[in-house]
This record gives sequence, C-alpha cells and structure tokens, in this order.
Amino acid sequence: MPITEVPAHLRAAVDAAKEKVAALHAELPRWELVVWTAGNVSERVSNPDGDDLLVIKPSGVAYDDITPGSMVVCDLEGNLVEGDRSPSSDTAAHAYVYTHMPEVGGVVHTHSTYATAWAARAEEIPCVLTMMADEFGGPVPVGPFAIIGDDSIGRGIVETLSGHRSPAVLMRNHGPFTIGKDARAAVKAAVMVEEVARTVHVSRQLGEPLPIAQEHVDSLYARYQNVYGQH
Amino acid sequence: MPITEVPAHLRAAVDAAKEKVAALHAELPRWELVVWTAGNVSERVSNPDGDDLLVIKPSGVAYDDITPGSMVVCDLEGNLVEGDRSPSSDTAAHAYVYTHMPEVGGVVHTHSTYATAWAARAEEIPCVLTMMADEFGGPVPVGPFAIIGDDSIGRGIVETLSGHRSPAVLMRNHGPFTIGKDARAAVKAAVMVEEVARTVHVSRQLGEPLPIAQEHVDSLYARYQNVYGQH
Amino acid sequence: MPITEVPAHLRAAVDAAKEKVAALHAELPRWELVVWTAGNVSERVSNPDGDDLLVIKPSGVAYDDITPGSMVVCDLEGNLVEGDRSPSSDTAAHAYVYTHMPEVGGVVHTHSTYATAWAARAEEIPCVLTMMADEFGGPVPVGPFAIIGDDSIGRGIVETLSGHRSPAVLMRNHGPFTIGKDARAAVKAAVMVEEVARTVHVSRQLGEPLPIAQEHVDSLYARYQNVYGQH
Amino acid sequence: MPITEVPAHLRAAVDAAKEKVAALHAELPRWELVVWTAGNVSERVSNPDGDDLLVIKPSGVAYDDITPGSMVVCDLEGNLVEGDRSPSSDTAAHAYVYTHMPEVGGVVHTHSTYATAWAARAEEIPCVLTMMADEFGGPVPVGPFAIIGDDSIGRGIVETLSGHRSPAVLMRNHGPFTIGKDARAAVKAAVMVEEVARTVHVSRQLGEPLPIAQEHVDSLYARYQNVYGQH
Repeated sequence: MPITEVPAHLRAAVDAAKEKVAALHAELPRWELVVWTAGNVSERVSNPDGDDLLVIKPSGVAYDDITPGSMVVCDLEGNLVEGDRSPSSDTAAHAYVYTHMPEVGGVVHTHSTYATAWAARAEEIPCVLTMMADEFGGPVPVGPFAIIGDDSIGRGIVETLSGHRSPAVLMRNHGPFTIGKDARAAVKAAVMVEEVARTVHVSRQLGEPLPIAQEHVDSLYARYQNVYGQH
Repeated sequence: MPITEVPAHLRAAVDAAKEKVAALHAELPRWELVVWTAGNVSERVSNPDGDDLLVIKPSGVAYDDITPGSMVVCDLEGNLVEGDRSPSSDTAAHAYVYTHMPEVGGVVHTHSTYATAWAARAEEIPCVLTMMADEFGGPVPVGPFAIIGDDSIGRGIVETLSGHRSPAVLMRNHGPFTIGKDARAAVKAAVMVEEVARTVHVSRQLGEPLPIAQEHVDSLYARYQNVYGQH
Repeated sequence: MPITEVPAHLRAAVDAAKEKVAALHAELPRWELVVWTAGNVSERVSNPDGDDLLVIKPSGVAYDDITPGSMVVCDLEGNLVEGDRSPSSDTAAHAYVYTHMPEVGGVVHTHSTYATAWAARAEEIPCVLTMMADEFGGPVPVGPFAIIGDDSIGRGIVETLSGHRSPAVLMRNHGPFTIGKDARAAVKAAVMVEEVARTVHVSRQLGEPLPIAQEHVDSLYARYQNVYGQH
Repeated sequence: MPITEVPAHLRAAVDAAKEKVAALHAELPRWELVVWTAGNVSERVSNPDGDDLLVIKPSGVAYDDITPGSMVVCDLEGNLVEGDRSPSSDTAAHAYVYTHMPEVGGVVHTHSTYATAWAARAEEIPCVLTMMADEFGGPVPVGPFAIIGDDSIGRGIVETLSGHRSPAVLMRNHGPFTIGKDARAAVKAAVMVEEVARTVHVSRQLGEPLPIAQEHVDSLYARYQNVYGQH
C-alpha cells in the first residue's frame, strides 16, 4: 500500500533531513559542480515501522530558491509523498539505490565537468593521487550507458558500486553519481570525485602520471577509513 | 510609421520585461559567460495592436550598474524607443531574430570561452552527453562568418536555427547566440551551451568521447521536451 | 628639480585619480587576473604647469587593504612624491610609458594566466575572434625579454606598442602590460587580453582556429573604434 | 617530558598565532587551492624557555567553521597540547619540518590542482617566468613518494628543501608543501606555486616555453629577495 503522507513518527526525522538536504545543495554551486538547476542531493529517512522515505530537491528549482520547505519527500519507488513540486527527474535512480544498497544513506548526482568528461569517454580515473587512495581506495569506475526515465540508471549504479571501494561511479555519457552513509558523505564524494577527475586530467595532459603501488593504495585506504571513517 | 514611444497599453508589459531582463543579466557573470560589459539578454514584448517591441541592455554598461531603469526599449528594426543610452550594438541581430522567428521570445549573446573556442574553429559540438540530448536534441550547429553592423548576424542565426532542435548557434569566429520562448529560456540555453562546450572539449582533450546512438538522442530529447517543455 | 610634494593646483586631480585607481584595482581579482598582491593599475595626472604625475598602488599591499588613501603618487621618473609606502616595483615601467607615449593616460600590469602563458612562449596571439578585431585590431604582439629594475621593461613596452593598434603587449617570460587613454581603458584592455588569450588557447587545443580576413579585421576595428572610441 | 598545556608565558603568543592561522586559512579557498576540508596552515610558536609549539587547523573542520578558538596547539612531536578536536592528520609532517628547519616559522599543505598534477608526474616545474625567478629562484623541485602517517613526508620535505631556494616542494603523487618565515609567507608560497604551476602548464600545452638564462634567474632572485625579503 503506497504511503500517501509522512507518518507522524517520522515527522521530526523528515524535517531534519529537509534542513540538511537543503543546506547541502548549496555546496554544489559552491564547488562549481553544477550550473543552473542541475544536480541533486537526497537523504534516506529510515522507518523502523515500515518502508523508508527519501528527501530530495524538486525538479527545476533555482539554487537561490532552495529552502527546507521546498524539498520534497518520496517513497522508495520514487512516488511523491509530500511537497508542492515534482521531485527531481533523477529520483527514480536515487530510490533504486536506497532500495538495493541498505547501507547507503545519501545519494548525489551532478554533471561536474571533469568527472563527466571521463564519463563521456567511458574511461575510469586511475588511482595516481594519495587523496584518491584515501577517499576512493583505487580507481573511480565507469557505469553503463543508461536511458533516463526507467530503472536502468539505478541498476547501473548499484551493479557498479556494490562491493566496490569507490563511493563514486561515472555513468557513461552522463555524469557522476556518489553515495555515502548520509547526504553529507555523498556530497563530499561528489566534491572529491570532481577534484580527482580534474587533477588527474590536468596531469595526463602533459604526460603520464606515475602509478601508486597497490600495497600503498591499500594501506592509505585502510588508514584513512580507520582514522576518519566515512566522513 | 516608426514607434516613438512605448504605447500606453504596453507600459505594464514593458516594465515587467525590464525587471526580468535586468535581473537575468546577473546570470551571465554568475556563470562566468561574460567579462567586463560583454554579453546581452533581450526579451520580446508582444503587441496585440501593432508591432512588437524588445527590451535589451544598453551598450557599454557595467554589470554592477544594470537596473530595470537602465534597460532600453527598441522596435524590431533596432531603433531606440525608450531609454537614456544607446542600445547594445547587437540589437540589430536580436531584432532580426524576433522579426523572422515569431516563436522566439528571448535572445542571448555572449562570448563564453568554450563555446567561442568551438566557434573559432567553425566546428559543431558533437552530441556525446545525455544533457546535450536533453537540451539540444543533437549537436550544436555552427553559423556563418558575419560582419557586425548589418543584417548578416541576424540572418546567420535565423538560417541556422530555423527548423533545428538546438536553441544555440555558434557564430563562426564570434560566439554563441541562444534563443528561447522567453528571456529566461534563452539564458538557460546560454548557460547550457557553455557547459556542454566545456565538458566535450575537456573530454576530447584526452581521447574521443563515445557517441550516443541517434535513437537514444531522440528518445532523451522527446522525454525532456515533454516533461519539461522549454524551460 | 624633483617634485617633492603634490602641487596645490593638482590636489583635486590627484585625489580623484586616487579614488579611481583604488576602485579599479578591485577589477583585477574580480576577473581573476591576479593572485595575492600581484598586479597594478596607474593613471597619469596631467600637469598644465610642469611635469605630470602618476598615481599607483604601493608595493605588497593586499587587495582587501586597498583604499584611495593607500595609493601613492610618483613623478615620471618613478620617484615617490606622496604616500606612506613604497610604490609598486613596476612603477619605473609605468613612468617610462607615460614619458614616451603622451597619449597614454593609464597603464596596467598583471600576470594573468593565459596571456602570460603566450608570453612564456614569446608567441603573439593570432586574430581569430571578432572581439579581437574590435578591441585589438589584429594580433596581440610580444615584447622583448627585459630585466626588472631598470628602463628595459618600459622601453620594451614603448617600442612594441608605438604605432601598433593593440593596447596590450605580452612581455616575454613575464606577462601582459596594457595601456589606454585612462586607467579604466587600460583595465578593460587587461581584462580583454586575458579573455582572448584564454579563448584562442582553448580553441587551438583541439585544432586550428580559422583566420579572419584582413579586410574584415580592418572593418571591424574601424567600426568599433568609431562607435565606441577607446572605452 | 611532554608539554600538557600551553605555558603561561606563551599564552599571548599562542592566542595571536591562533588568530593569524585561522584568518590565513580563508586564503586557501579564496585562491581555489582546496576543496571541502582539505589543506592546512600552521605556525610555529617559539618558546625561549623550552620546546616550541605549533598552531594548526583541526582535522575535518569545514572552512566556514574555522575560528581562532577552533585551532589546536601541538608540540613538535605532533601531540595535542590544547584544543577540542584532533589535529590535522598532516600535523606530523608540519612538526617534522619545524624540528629540522629552525628558520621555518610557517608551513602550508594543499592539494591545489596544477601543482598536484606536476607532482603526480614527479616532474619539477621549469623556471620560465620572471615571477618564478623572483619567488622560487629556479625550478620548483619534486619530493619523494611518502606514505602518510609516519615521518616520511616530513623527511621528504626537509631533504628536498634544505639548502634549496624554493619555498615549495611537490611531494610525488601527493601535492605541494610550502614553507616560510611565518604562516603568511608560507601561504603566499602556496598561492604562488599554484599560480606558476598553472601558468607553465598552460604555456606548455601549445608548445615549449622559452627558458630564462641562469644569470637572469639569479639576478631576478637576488633583487627580489633584497627588495622584498621573504614577504
């Protein structure tokens, strides 16, 4: 039976997520990951008594007009539960990820320039920076070409990232999707994937960056995840 | 007989257009499409009782000094109807587009870096990104070389864009012009053409981006135009 | 006999120039032409009764700390006439230009990235954009390698720009200097030289930009100078 | 015996350093040297009666949340002496530099894009700009690959920069570290190393920048250090 309104016991959690997700959207233009109304951040609202919900930006809203009250709430099929506007057209992809990756609490999608440039060539970003080893634990992988509007984007993300160290996937010809334990971690991954995409791109323009030995990648990743966790 | 002042029945519409056009000019430096006083946005004011007018930025005004009151009104021959300063030197090109493309309600011109770089090579931008399929429905076309100061820019825009899916044309050795149902849609197209020009440029620097099959371009474009219309 | 203080009859003109030059310095970081304390703008103060003066930024002052009162006044030998700090180390070059090019009222120097990149290769920027034909009337020329601290920079600027249409010179291995009828025109030229340096650079990264026929360059330049003058 | 609190006679110096280091952190995002919480600035607090201390940013704090009160104080082994949060994970490297280079009063670390791109290729930046001769006195050197979490980064910095004119080292696959007589000088070096890394990169994209003769590098460096000192 579809949820048609936010259950009373989730009201506080939904409102907190709206505040958080609205504020995190400001990080996208700040770090130059998006133009105009592109890009979106969502966060899962866990429901101990039933199906989880998600909070996401509505479609086509300008970054200056984003407020907690303008965020929309959907179920994990992508149906609108609460809100005055249509949810982002990427909501189905976010919802698919939450359904199939229970450890994921936040999802971000952008068309950030350098990450999308690698995606257009369907080329993974090689791990040649210590900050990549820290954050991604190896290369950033490429996902399949997927048509917008059905499950294929969500499936592509889940198939690529399940069991992978990287919290970011470059969807072919499309752009990056990132995941995290919460929306803030997914935004951080969106910022970092553009950073490493840009830096490795620039490095390769004038030669070949030196690889980092796998044992060093592994030890950097292990240290970073232990010291910092997922933040 | 030339219009020498704003007709009383268009006063409210003209004033509303001045507000809107002045505010939209702020989007040009915001998304780094212009430097100094370059670039201009116009909007058509439809006249049910006679010839349409257009509202545009005056020539040489700094972005910080743009106010609704500083906007100028011209007829569709580019003659000044109202305003304290000379209209932008690109007004003739805007006016030509409004005269010959009645469905167009807004026009924008910039020298944004990456779009202008493709224009200097007279090379169309290939459709290798899903966001290009969404917004442009295929490649972004190149218009002819045209001298400034007569009809040739306007003619080049109209000949290239008439019957074309793309709301943007790269005028050879010059820069992009974009159109839309209103000024906001044309500004969005100006932002998006620079975004795709930059992303495809960056992607091609290190290899060849993968093409998107024509059937997928068509279905992405159809979906986006149906779901979103022209906004 | 060296001038040791601002003559009374120039007080108002000097103070006006300090206001203007201080305000124009804000355009340098705004358009990303400088980092830290690099870059400087000066303006000539004409003296009907004797030697002209110039107003310039002091050495090593942060952009946030620039005020009209912090500007310094020098004679055209570069000697300090008024001010609490040492004049910019580029003052000798500015002064040399004012002495040898009486039509010049403003000078600007930056290390803006793309113009400096062309300068490091000692390669002129070819005229492949209509905005270059408008503003520069042809290619942007390269000046000689010159050691800092004597007349050689000033001589290189004057020898390169005298009788040249371009208000900008790329000093080899150093960066651009620009001139104008006043400081604002020279700042505009500094903004525009970086804009065309960047756009032509980007265009050439993926192929060869198409040339503009000399007759078109000439007619674009003539029209622009007539319509706009030097502003 | 480890220091467990700030000695009373250093209280004023520590508080002044906290103010200064907190304010200088704002320069890192301002000049686009860092994203998210990356990057750190430290300053030595000299102790005439015992071991010196250092003030540094805590780990994982957002740039908007940096205040003098959030800065942490460590001894020169990297142990926390005062502060509510863990010191930056790069503290050991900063501390090693202060211990082994007594003339150094400030250290900065970033992952700025262009400097890190050279570092990923382990390629020094050649001295082809007069501003490089001024600030760095020659090429910017590369340091060894070093694992994070022990002394190896600090050792690599000290071995590379000891006796070298350059205040910046590009740590292989990692990014730049810079030093100075105080934190402000080290921040300036961090800004300048990215500036020259970017400009020389851009210049080399379309050809080979011309070298500057060693005698000119030497005279530019000597003049700049005499006139400006280390600021």
